[in-house]
Amino acid sequence: MYATGGDIMTDISSSRSIAQLYEADLTWVDGRFQRDVRVAVDTAGRIEAVGALDGNVTQQLKGKALLPGFVNAHSHAFQRGLRGHGETFVEGAGSFWTWRKAMYELVGRMDETMMYELSRQAFEEMLAAGITTVGEFHYLHHDASEAGFAFDDVVLRAAADAGIRIVLLNAYYATGGIGEPLQGGQLRFGSRSVSEYLDQLDALAARMTSQTQSLGMVAHSIRAVPIENVMILQQESDKRGMVLHMHVEEQQEEINACVDHYHHPPMALLNEHVAVSSRFTAVHCTHSAAADLDLYLEAGGNVCICPLTEANLGDGLANIPRMLHHNGCVCLGTDSNARISMLEEMRWLEYGQRLQLQQRGVCVDDAGQVAPRLLEMATLNGARALGVRAGAIRKGAWADFVTIDLDNAALRGSPDESLLAALVFGSGNDAIAGVCVGGRWFDF
Amino acid sequence: MYATGGDIMTDISSSRSIAQLYEADLTWVDGRFQRDVRVAVDTAGRIEAVGALDGNVTQQLKGKALLPGFVNAHSHAFQRGLRGHGETFVEGAGSFWTWRKAMYELVGRMDETMMYELSRQAFEEMLAAGITTVGEFHYLHHDASEAGFAFDDVVLRAAADAGIRIVLLNAYYATGGIGEPLQGGQLRFGSRSVSEYLDQLDALAARMTSQTQSLGMVAHSIRAVPIENVMILQQESDKRGMVLHMHVEEQQEEINACVDHYHHPPMALLNEHVAVSSRFTAVHCTHSAAADLDLYLEAGGNVCICPLTEANLGDGLANIPRMLHHNGCVCLGTDSNARISMLEEMRWLEYGQRLQLQQRGVCVDDAGQVAPRLLEMATLNGARALGVRAGAIRKGAWADFVTIDLDNAALRGSPDESLLAALVFGSGNDAIAGVCVGGRWFDF
Repeated sequence: MYATGGDIMTDISSSRSIAQLYEADLTWVDGRFQRDVRVAVDTAGRIEAVGALDGNVTQQLKGKALLPGFVNAHSHAFQRGLRGHGETFVEGAGSFWTWRKAMYELVGRMDETMMYELSRQAFEEMLAAGITTVGEFHYLHHDASEAGFAFDDVVLRAAADAGIRIVLLNAYYATGGIGEPLQGGQLRFGSRSVSEYLDQLDALAARMTSQTQSLGMVAHSIRAVPIENVMILQQESDKRGMVLHMHVEEQQEEINACVDHYHHPPMALLNEHVAVSSRFTAVHCTHSAAADLDLYLEAGGNVCICPLTEANLGDGLANIPRMLHHNGCVCLGTDSNARISMLEEMRWLEYGQRLQLQQRGVCVDDAGQVAPRLLEMATLNGARALGVRAGAIRKGAWADFVTIDLDNAALRGSPDESLLAALVFGSGNDAIAGVCVGGRWFDF
Repeated sequence: MYATGGDIMTDISSSRSIAQLYEADLTWVDGRFQRDVRVAVDTAGRIEAVGALDGNVTQQLKGKALLPGFVNAHSHAFQRGLRGHGETFVEGAGSFWTWRKAMYELVGRMDETMMYELSRQAFEEMLAAGITTVGEFHYLHHDASEAGFAFDDVVLRAAADAGIRIVLLNAYYATGGIGEPLQGGQLRFGSRSVSEYLDQLDALAARMTSQTQSLGMVAHSIRAVPIENVMILQQESDKRGMVLHMHVEEQQEEINACVDHYHHPPMALLNEHVAVSSRFTAVHCTHSAAADLDLYLEAGGNVCICPLTEANLGDGLANIPRMLHHNGCVCLGTDSNARISMLEEMRWLEYGQRLQLQQRGVCVDDAGQVAPRLLEMATLNGARALGVRAGAIRKGAWADFVTIDLDNAALRGSPDESLLAALVFGSGNDAIAGVCVGGRWFDF
């Protein structure tokens, strides 16, 4: 992997003169692949213009198709360290909860070096999978001292060194279960109070200068955050213009505990107490009741689905048709990073539904097409959930792209009209030729 | 892609002197990765010995792990031509049956050149996915003349030119539905009689000289073959010592039609009328009743599951726990070849079950491990279903291997004990460094 054009990132000229003019064989604009399209990128790393532009092409992307870079709306980068582990079940079948035990063991061993290396490894694999923005849902804040938030900067540094755009979704985590104290590995996740959490958030914000890094807020889950505090965090996120993410209803056990304590499932509780908007993202919603989901979606809330992780953990399948019926904003995340492939996430979001419903064509757009709808989830919808101007090749968005190798064996013989479907349903990471993050290129 | 050592294949010496001695960093023997293992391959392309062998290593597979080559027990190579097609649903959701219409359209356009090119393309992609043997379930026999079996040789030639080991599972196809005549595209599948089918089979057998090609028999499905003829085909396959494959209970509609006509579902009909043995393979069994499955498995029958295709077609999920409870021989196939990745097939066989059962660790071996059990399905079990001595690195088996690039980013940091799980759950085709088919190497 080598990077070119890094100088663009440091030369932030207010004049925004055109720095680069790209032309690929095919470019994904307005929901289809088009030929003879040029993309102008300014010196600040933003798209300046798209179309039949005059000027000298600075980079001819021969034999390539240009797509908006994929947006990974939910990741725990350090969990890359669990890959291949926890797949032996000596006492019979396992569950999310036995997996969580293995995750806590990893947490217990984590130091700064390991945190950096695992995070960087995950971010580099993401780039190679066509992901240009990661929403890093970051809850492992502390080293063995169980205080100090040392790992927050480590994650930001790993992202910067890898070259990926990051929205650090910084997590507030207060309880080890509803009304229970933190225990064991959880002590490394905790903030002593909402104000300590906000102080650290604002301190991070103050030293965040790079154009490829921004912040979002997180209430980890109803297990880890009392509903009163979710309400406060929501208000604080509004004040700061930041997105707010939360794990919601991934596991039935979590729902049961919430009903026991609050007399409502988590989603109903959110609908009642929190001002849900397009800045709110509920991650998973695997077991959400249809009526709760309807209210949440009507308020504009986003849902992040993580097909590979939810399959690995045996969570179950969310009610995607209900979400799409409400024109809900569904995005995608690689979550545990046991496998990093956005193309595989896309197709298995659809395939899980096909298997359950025993029909084909669940995630369709108005024209009845599946692949463009899945791509939208992997790009625009993720960008909305993360509050970044990305996910589409259009003026004003970050110059974040993924290039596809049209000579890849998996795509051979595909006409322009079915190329995206061949890519989404029939190819893998080896079809990814390179990515561009804010004008900085990485070739694979 | 380039091939080396092709001369081994033509020098079939009866003395079987050792032609090659390989040593990889890690070799999969006796269900685990081991170091300091050498593999001796004779001039006929078979494994002569495995262990701490003396002699000069002719090929040091540095930075590689050596596994038995994957065995793809069910493929329709020409359907590679449908990749990316049929993924638009203008009239609402589709099904297996709307997909079949698209497949028949492709069939109607097929000529020898197209048949060769699509087949070769599929076989080359299989090699790049670590597949060294394909069971090609071949039912598209005729060109536009609707007679003459011209495509049988075309498929064999494409396999030979690609370099993959093929078991041509040659299909008998007689009816367009139970008791119905062939129609439209189906006329290209048909044999006028069982004896015409057998004559063609024996003619193919007589001119089959290559060590990488062999034949098996097929009764396409209960839709296409009257049960009396399935019985005859089974007896003829026994006489010839050939395996017999059949599509069984992929779709509820097929089961309903069978019950209407025969008063039993297909699997029950087979159990009653056909001498099921380890030479019989039922493909799919998606909707098989538990009791019918029990009888079938107790008689030694194999089941072939095709996770990616069954997901794409919205077939549903088979009762894998029931199959494994009977220690059933479950193997894997890439079927429609919409996507060719044996690693993805492996993990999604397990993941489909996890999603359905909401638990982790379904396909476990006696030690509670998932990855080795899935690998067994992708190697040994497939070899049994196809009747080839392959699927394991042991004396007497074909020298069919896949090498894994230990420097692949997805595998970085994996200790020997969890490497296979990292490979199966966390990597893709780009981790495949090369394959060896009967002593002939392909590097990617």
